[in-house]
Amino acid sequence: MPSMEVWITYASTYSYLTVSRIGALAAARGVALDWRPFSLAAVRDRLQLPFPFPPSSPKTAYMWLDLERRARALGLPYRRPETYPVNALLTARAALLGVPEGWCQRFTEQVFRLHWVEGRLIGTDDNIRSALASIGLDVDAVLARAQSPEITQRLEQQCADALSRGIFGAPSFVVDGELFWGDDRLEMALDRAATA
Amino acid sequence: MPSMEVWITYASTYSYLTVSRIGALAAARGVALDWRPFSLAAVRDRLQLPFPFPPSSPKTAYMWLDLERRARALGLPYRRPETYPVNALLTARAALLGVPEGWCQRFTEQVFRLHWVEGRLIGTDDNIRSALASIGLDVDAVLARAQSPEITQRLEQQCADALSRGIFGAPSFVVDGELFWGDDRLEMALDRAATA
Repeated sequence: MPSMEVWITYASTYSYLTVSRIGALAAARGVALDWRPFSLAAVRDRLQLPFPFPPSSPKTAYMWLDLERRARALGLPYRRPETYPVNALLTARAALLGVPEGWCQRFTEQVFRLHWVEGRLIGTDDNIRSALASIGLDVDAVLARAQSPEITQRLEQQCADALSRGIFGAPSFVVDGELFWGDDRLEMALDRAATA
Repeated sequence: MPSMEVWITYASTYSYLTVSRIGALAAARGVALDWRPFSLAAVRDRLQLPFPFPPSSPKTAYMWLDLERRARALGLPYRRPETYPVNALLTARAALLGVPEGWCQRFTEQVFRLHWVEGRLIGTDDNIRSALASIGLDVDAVLARAQSPEITQRLEQQCADALSRGIFGAPSFVVDGELFWGDDRLEMALDRAATA
């Protein structure tokens, strides 16, 4: 079965568009998703890139306009969160546990839905606990393991792996080593994976 | 007739994709194009934004990969230019003359075709003179007028107008005050204009 790496950062706004539709789009093409939760902030640090959306920049104002417009065009529910940016590191740590255990995608879908539809902010205890509980996990046990040194090490390895692929933003997709950046390239990347 | 503002910078790589196809796409939708050549470098200066594509950045490497991939997907000829970035200020100055005189679009199409298909770099005397001559203009007369103080003033006004619309990149499109950024939004912007 063809597969595609999905590099997701939970603090990324455009990742909402991707997470909300990638499951159905991949299934329709018979593409398996190889989830790679990571910290884009760590990657930016290493690349010495500035945060792209400071409060009063026109680019930030445009991002909000464009995100809502795209969500509506794609038929996705959308509610602008009250807080931005959010600190989603613990969410990424939990998601890393879900990769080998097979629940990363379901968890990720819940995390984004809670934030972008119900206004329950990514990175809060409420969001992460609700998402874990909704897919039937032992919340306290997952959160304890998410804070282990082993996960710190896995997160650092994700950062190194992202850099080795030339990743500088999120969402990003990798098909046979070829990078696709941004929700706008989701279909192109999946099509590439399906025909690779 | 519905219309759309087209904000083009000649040093912008992705603008090649837009310039090569906007004429046909707009005609098919019955949308008139209101050309707005401007200096994105001047806008970035005012916004204190860094140049987005420094030589050794992963984002720059990705831009070249993605640009060629998109050009091929769109069926456009593509030849990576030997020099980047280019100084295209004189080209923008000439293009400004073409707006009220009705030749901005034809000139712009020639400028980009020469650069991206024939390897005759934007900003060089060869490129600008060839583009002007190919559409039947008196080259020396246009170049003399392009360097007048009146055009300097018009260029400054373009910068102020771009800022007032929230523009921070190119290509950008404006429909009834609503901003669309990037070649990836070209169809959406034209559709909006056609139905406005």
